[in-house]
Parts: sequence; structure tokens; C-alpha cells
Amino acid sequence: MAAQFNPVTPELLAELRQVVGDKYVKTDEDYLERYQTDEEGNSHYFHKPEVVVFPGSTEEVAAIVKLANKYLVPITPRSAGSGVACGAIPVYHGMVVELERMNQILKFDADNMYAVCQTGVITGDLQREAAKHGLLYAGDPSSADSSMIGGNVANNAGGNKAVKYGTTRHQIYSLKVVTPTGDILDAGARLKKSSTGLCLEQLFAGSEGTLGIITEVTVKLRPMPPYAFNMVCVFKTDEEAFALPNKILKAGIDPTSIEFMDNEALRMTCKFLDMKMPHVDEGCDYVIVTVESFSEDDSDRKMEQLCDLAEANGSIDEFEADKRIWTLRKQFAEAARDVDKMFQTEDFVVPLDKIPEITKQIPELREKYDLYCVTVAHIGDGNIHVLPLNAKGLSPEEWFQKIKAFHRDLFPRVYALGGKMSGEHGIGYKKLEEFALCTPQAELNVIKAIKKALDPNNIMNPGKLVEIG
Amino acid sequence: MAAQFNPVTPELLAELRQVVGDKYVKTDEDYLERYQTDEEGNSHYFHKPEVVVFPGSTEEVAAIVKLANKYLVPITPRSAGSGVACGAIPVYHGMVVELERMNQILKFDADNMYAVCQTGVITGDLQREAAKHGLLYAGDPSSADSSMIGGNVANNAGGNKAVKYGTTRHQIYSLKVVTPTGDILDAGARLKKSSTGLCLEQLFAGSEGTLGIITEVTVKLRPMPPYAFNMVCVFKTDEEAFALPNKILKAGIDPTSIEFMDNEALRMTCKFLDMKMPHVDEGCDYVIVTVESFSEDDSDRKMEQLCDLAEANGSIDEFEADKRIWTLRKQFAEAARDVDKMFQTEDFVVPLDKIPEITKQIPELREKYDLYCVTVAHIGDGNIHVLPLNAKGLSPEEWFQKIKAFHRDLFPRVYALGGKMSGEHGIGYKKLEEFALCTPQAELNVIKAIKKALDPNNIMNPGKLVEIG
Repeated sequence: MAAQFNPVTPELLAELRQVVGDKYVKTDEDYLERYQTDEEGNSHYFHKPEVVVFPGSTEEVAAIVKLANKYLVPITPRSAGSGVACGAIPVYHGMVVELERMNQILKFDADNMYAVCQTGVITGDLQREAAKHGLLYAGDPSSADSSMIGGNVANNAGGNKAVKYGTTRHQIYSLKVVTPTGDILDAGARLKKSSTGLCLEQLFAGSEGTLGIITEVTVKLRPMPPYAFNMVCVFKTDEEAFALPNKILKAGIDPTSIEFMDNEALRMTCKFLDMKMPHVDEGCDYVIVTVESFSEDDSDRKMEQLCDLAEANGSIDEFEADKRIWTLRKQFAEAARDVDKMFQTEDFVVPLDKIPEITKQIPELREKYDLYCVTVAHIGDGNIHVLPLNAKGLSPEEWFQKIKAFHRDLFPRVYALGGKMSGEHGIGYKKLEEFALCTPQAELNVIKAIKKALDPNNIMNPGKLVEIG
Repeated sequence: MAAQFNPVTPELLAELRQVVGDKYVKTDEDYLERYQTDEEGNSHYFHKPEVVVFPGSTEEVAAIVKLANKYLVPITPRSAGSGVACGAIPVYHGMVVELERMNQILKFDADNMYAVCQTGVITGDLQREAAKHGLLYAGDPSSADSSMIGGNVANNAGGNKAVKYGTTRHQIYSLKVVTPTGDILDAGARLKKSSTGLCLEQLFAGSEGTLGIITEVTVKLRPMPPYAFNMVCVFKTDEEAFALPNKILKAGIDPTSIEFMDNEALRMTCKFLDMKMPHVDEGCDYVIVTVESFSEDDSDRKMEQLCDLAEANGSIDEFEADKRIWTLRKQFAEAARDVDKMFQTEDFVVPLDKIPEITKQIPELREKYDLYCVTVAHIGDGNIHVLPLNAKGLSPEEWFQKIKAFHRDLFPRVYALGGKMSGEHGIGYKKLEEFALCTPQAELNVIKAIKKALDPNNIMNPGKLVEIG
């Protein structure tokens, strides 16, 4: 059911200019074209906005939202546009509200280990600022150097440190949010605990911009562990690799990250980077384990314990990872993009004990849908990136249809094992239909009831997550 | 604005008996009297239900909720009734739905470190079952031996291990909830991360039974650290004591718990238990720090580091705590109750750096309201239990009025420092007015909108948290 909205009129444009100033209201064709997509490369999904607005403050955002309600024009909030679920594509046209101007760290309190960031602060900038003070901002999506903190929260971005520190939702104390009716709300507080009212900050976090626009985030900082090691454990079979994480966790090693690259992914990325890495030619997988510690002794002890565990589980070699390993892991997406700009990053998530069951079904699906796939995974948290690559150069529409069919087959298998379709990327526009198909009616009803209650005119990022028509 | 409900009729009773069986529908006067209160001792708050129903399954709970909507009769969900915010008092009469029969651990999976508990499982039983398998259930309210897991989740109970492991909301993977319209919903999943839909499990957790009845909880279990020490650091002044937690946290000692007992609280409890403890006669406070470790070396190193930090901050003595210390801490509430069954447990929470600012205002308030107060606190998370005791034997109504006046003075001071009125006990019926007064309108609007959207007939624990009339 398509939502009914009004077009952007000259009257609305005039009011928007009054709010943010002439130069921050863009209707030029090159802007509309630039904002027709986010990280998505398949033109099937592209939709142009009618106007792009660049507010400079929470109050301006609130005024814009009030105008959207007055004129019944949809808003698509956006920060870096680095999402991969088409969450920042304006599927009903209307306004894109681009928050990149709001890019200041408003407060950085090293003594009390928190920072107040505007939504447009680049995640990597916050990480580096924290590091200067011996502190850690533990949100660490692979996109950290381009993604922004507001978008990280809106999508509950995951990344490389989630095993120890959780995802972005676990890094936040509180949020400043402009609600869909244009009120300014402080959700949460800089408190270690609270049983005062509903936990609204966690409701807004991960709501993909459908319940409001996040304009400020108060993040937790942590003491930076001074010792760390990265160990690559080499396995001949996926099954042996997948059995390791649970044993590491049970042993109390408390790893920061447990990453997996299958042999296909290793070969593709080594080729792309013109690198040679041990045991790749022998057909092996890598499990890369990062452990941080506050003492050298503790670090040494855990390294020994980890190697023992890995060997007991069939690892044929362990070696300390150098920078090449992280280059390999982080450049993997670029290597995929080098095959074709249209590629699909699955990010389904299953309980750790179900990883072998789901991954062993992938070869059958590859064959059935004639797909070339590589796999990397945050196997410490069950989050599997199977990447079908458009190696045969299908057209946007053909590729779209192929991936739809693949999803309709894959996701019910994931849900049958107690999993969900997205561990860190979100539903957005891309998986809207799949989410409606896989989610029990009682859960959909509650989500829609909340959406309708907070956004009666359905102007806040409509066409994402759930369609309320 | 009072809610409008119908009385419980013979027709409704007949239908309830069909659902749960005759013997689980109680209208005898002794039941109605027993269920007129929970842990609350002040008769000012008491309200009798018209019927108490004891369902045996989620399906029975759902059928009861459907009847409540059909007859427009309010439901007050209850498990152990160990709450201290009058959350289980049926303020509009109607039905109390007592979940104590649903007391099974349905699944305990030690390999994959989780358990599925019915809502009526006693928290301490779950802790002990976990310990048998070398695992830890980290939710640990002081009431663990009587409170139940469903109530812990509904109130987001805190307790003694929250510094390291968080509160009850951080111990859950997923919840089975009967919504206010009688649907059965699985919120969340046994996943380490998810960006799939709204974070409903965290919305229901801490909603104090106003958004539905939790019937099952899937909890996280963790490896039990085999080494632990409890160190008492003795301080002559509150200020020195309060400065310690932040320094412990920044040093990466990762304490499980940092507890505080002021001299008055120590004296009162020592007298009640007829114990003698070091430095209490000298007017000193205790800070009790618990640190768990996976290696003896790590434990030793942290103990040394902790003592150095404490001494640098003015501690005059440190000694390892034995069982007496925990008896002291846990029997503190009993000692308070021994003064009078009516006593008030404040549980406001502030940022750690604001603890000195709020506590130094307490003597003024004590004097102003002629109150005898003792203080214990989870100072590792800013959660302060100031306990005004009814030492002068005021009547229920006089005591109620005195505490109301005290709250109206205290809470705005807490909020001015970025705090909130409840760190772990909730709002319930007891602080309903105070919550409405201290909470910004935009936040109240969102909470009410969600409540109305999920509970259109307002039958689910009305008169708690917010009044939607």
C-alpha cells in the first residue's frame, strides 16, 4: 500500500529557506541525483528527492519536521549515506534532511568518560579523539572512516568490536531526537542505570529514522586497554573454524573480536590487493581473534590459552596478525565492489551454535541461484556476511530479481534456526518485503502501532522498515 | 484523571474459571487482603483486588487478558510482589494476575550459555542452577532469594553486580510477552546482535507491566570467574569515598560491584545484628569493592592496584571482606524494617561525578523534614539509597505526607544534576505524580502515545508509571 503525500511546493521551499537559509535548500538537479541513493549501487532502488535540506541545529531540524507535517511531505533523514539497506533513499521523494553540517563534538569529558556528539560526527574522528585521551569509543563499524555517529545509532551499526563491547546501541547514554511531530526529546540520560520510565533511547536506536531524527548522541567512553594481540588461527574446514568462538567465550578470554574469512574471500582480496598470505593457496580459512588486556601478563596468558584452544579444535597454524590482516579484512568490500558495483552484502545473524547449520546450506543456494559468493563473518556474534557478487554482469533488474529469489529462499532458513535477517545493516527499503514476510504478525502489529502513534502523518522515513500506508 | 473500569462480575468469574480452573480463581477475603499490597508497608497505598487469578501457561494469560478487554476490567500483573514502588498494587481493583505457578526453568543450555525461564522462577534459583554448571546469571538484586525473574525484568532490577554486568535488562536475550490486547509476542531473540526491527525486548523490559505481561525470559549466562576478592576500603569522609569509583573504573580494574555504607547505616545494622566491625565506632564509612578474575595473577594485580588507589584517595584501612560484610549489606533492609515497617527506600541515580553534589544536600533535607536517614549506595553506578526511617512512629497518612513533601524537594535537585528518580525500583504507583512532575512533556507525550497505542482500553496495570485516564 503506497503512502499518499503532497509534492514539494514553492510555498514549502520558501518556508524551508526561512528556517535554514537559502544556501542550505538545494533543488539543483545534481543534488537531486546525488541524493537518489546512498551506498546502494543498483539503480533499481534509486529515487530522487525533490529537495535536499541541510539544517545546522536541532531547532532547525524540528522546524523542518513541523513543515513536513504541515505540508504532508515525507522526510528522509541522512547523515553520511553509508548504509547498505537503502535506508537513506527517499522512496516517496519529498525532502532529504542531510545532517552533515551538524558535525561537532559538543563536549568531550575524559575524566568522566563520555562525549556529546552531533549526529554528523564521523565515527573515526570520535575514535581518534578518544584515543588521544587514552580512551576507547567502542563502536567500530567497518565504515568508521566515512560513517557518522547518528547513522550508526539509527542503524545500530555493529562492526569489529561487538563481541566484547556490543553494537552501537550499547555505546550510548542518551539521544536528542526530533520526534515525527517536531518535538525535541531527550531520551535516556548519562546514567549507569535507570528504571525511570520507558527505555526510549533503545527504541529510537536501530529504528532506522522511522521514529524521529537523532540530532545528538551522548556516547560512553571506556578506558583503552594498553595491551592487545591479534591472532590468526588457520583452519582447513569451515566446521572447525565455526566451533572455536563458543569455546573462546566460555573460557573467559573475553575477546574483542572474532572474525572469519573463508578461502574464497581470502583469495579474492589477496588478488585485488596483490598480496600473498600464508595457507591461502592450501584452501584454508582464517579466524582472526583480537584480545585486549590491561596487563602484559594477562595478555600473554590469554594468547597461550587461545592457541591451545585453537589447536585442540584443529587449527593447523597460528600466527600473530600484522597490519596486512586488517587491510585484508577492511579492503574486502572494495575487492567485492571491484567485481561489480552491484553486489549484495547479506548480514543475517544466527545463534553461535547454528552457524554451521546455516553456512552448510549456502553451497546449495549458490548452485540453485547460479551465484558466485564469498563469506566473511563476525563469527564471535553469529553475524554472517555472505556476499553474492554480480560476476556475470547481470542488468540491475535481473540482479534485483535474482537477489529477491535468493532472499525468499535464504531468510526462512535463517529464521528456522532462530536467526534474523539483519545483524547490523538494518531493513531499510531493501528488505521491507522480506521483513514483513518473515516477522510474526504480533510483532509487526506492535511495530506498526508504535510507528502510527509517534508518526500519525507517516512523514518520517516512510517506506522503510515497515509500510503503514 | 481516574480511569473508568467495570466491576468484576459473576459472568467474568465464570469465564476466568473456565480458563484456569476453579481452584485458581480466588475471591476469598484472605486472598483479597493478601494481594492489597506488595512489599509496601504503608496502608495509605493499599488497594484490594476483586479477584486473584493464577494462570499456568502463556496461553491462559492471553485468554485472561482477552477477558479483561471484553469486560473492561483492569489487570495488575504480579510475580513475587517484592517490588518497593507499589507496582503490584491493584489501584483500580479488578484482577491481580499472579504468575507464581509459572516457575519452571524450561531450558538450561550450559554449552551455549542461556536459559529459558518462566516468569515465576526465583532469581536465586536461577543463579544457583547456573553456578552448578560453572556459569553466572549476573542479575543480582538484593531480593534475589524472593524476587522472580519476570518481575526483575519488568522493573529492570539492578542490584549488586550492575557495575560490571549491567542491570536486568542487560541479562536478557528475549521475552515472551502477552500484549495488552492478548496477543502472544516473542520480543528479541537469542542473538548477540540484531538490527532487524524495533528493539521491543528493551521496551517491554522496565515497562513495569504497563505494556504487557512477561511470561518467559531467555537469559544470558556467562562464564563464572573462578577468582574473586571483596575489599573494604575505610574512609573518614563521604567525599573521599565518593571519589574512588571513577578512578577504579578508569584504571581498567573492571569491578563487579562498588558498594557504599555510611556510618549511620553501619551503626544501625551492626546494632540490629549485634555485630562489631572495624572503624565503625570511629565514625567511618565503608566502600566495598568486588573484583572477579579468570586468573589468580590478574586478581592479585588488581587487588594491589585497588589498595594503592584507595590509599591515594584517603582510605585509612583496607581489609578483605568476609561473609560478615555481605550479611551487613543484605540485612540492612531488615534493620531498617526493624525501626518501623513503614520506611522509604529512595533509589535515585545520578552521574558518578554528581554523587558528592547530591549527597551533600541530604543533611539539609533531613533537618528540613525532620527525618532520620541512613544511606547505602551502589556508588559504582551512581545509585543512591537514602532511607528515611519512620523513627518517630508517624501514622500512615502523616508518613505519606512527609515523604511526598521530601520527594517534591529532593527530586528536582536530582534532575538538576542530570539524574533520575529511580535507578532500579521503578515508578509504580508510588512515584506516579512525581514522575509526571519531573519528566519533560515531550518524553511524557511519547510514553503516553506508546501506552495508548499498545493498550487502547488501558487495562494493563493502570495507575502505574503514567496515567492515561
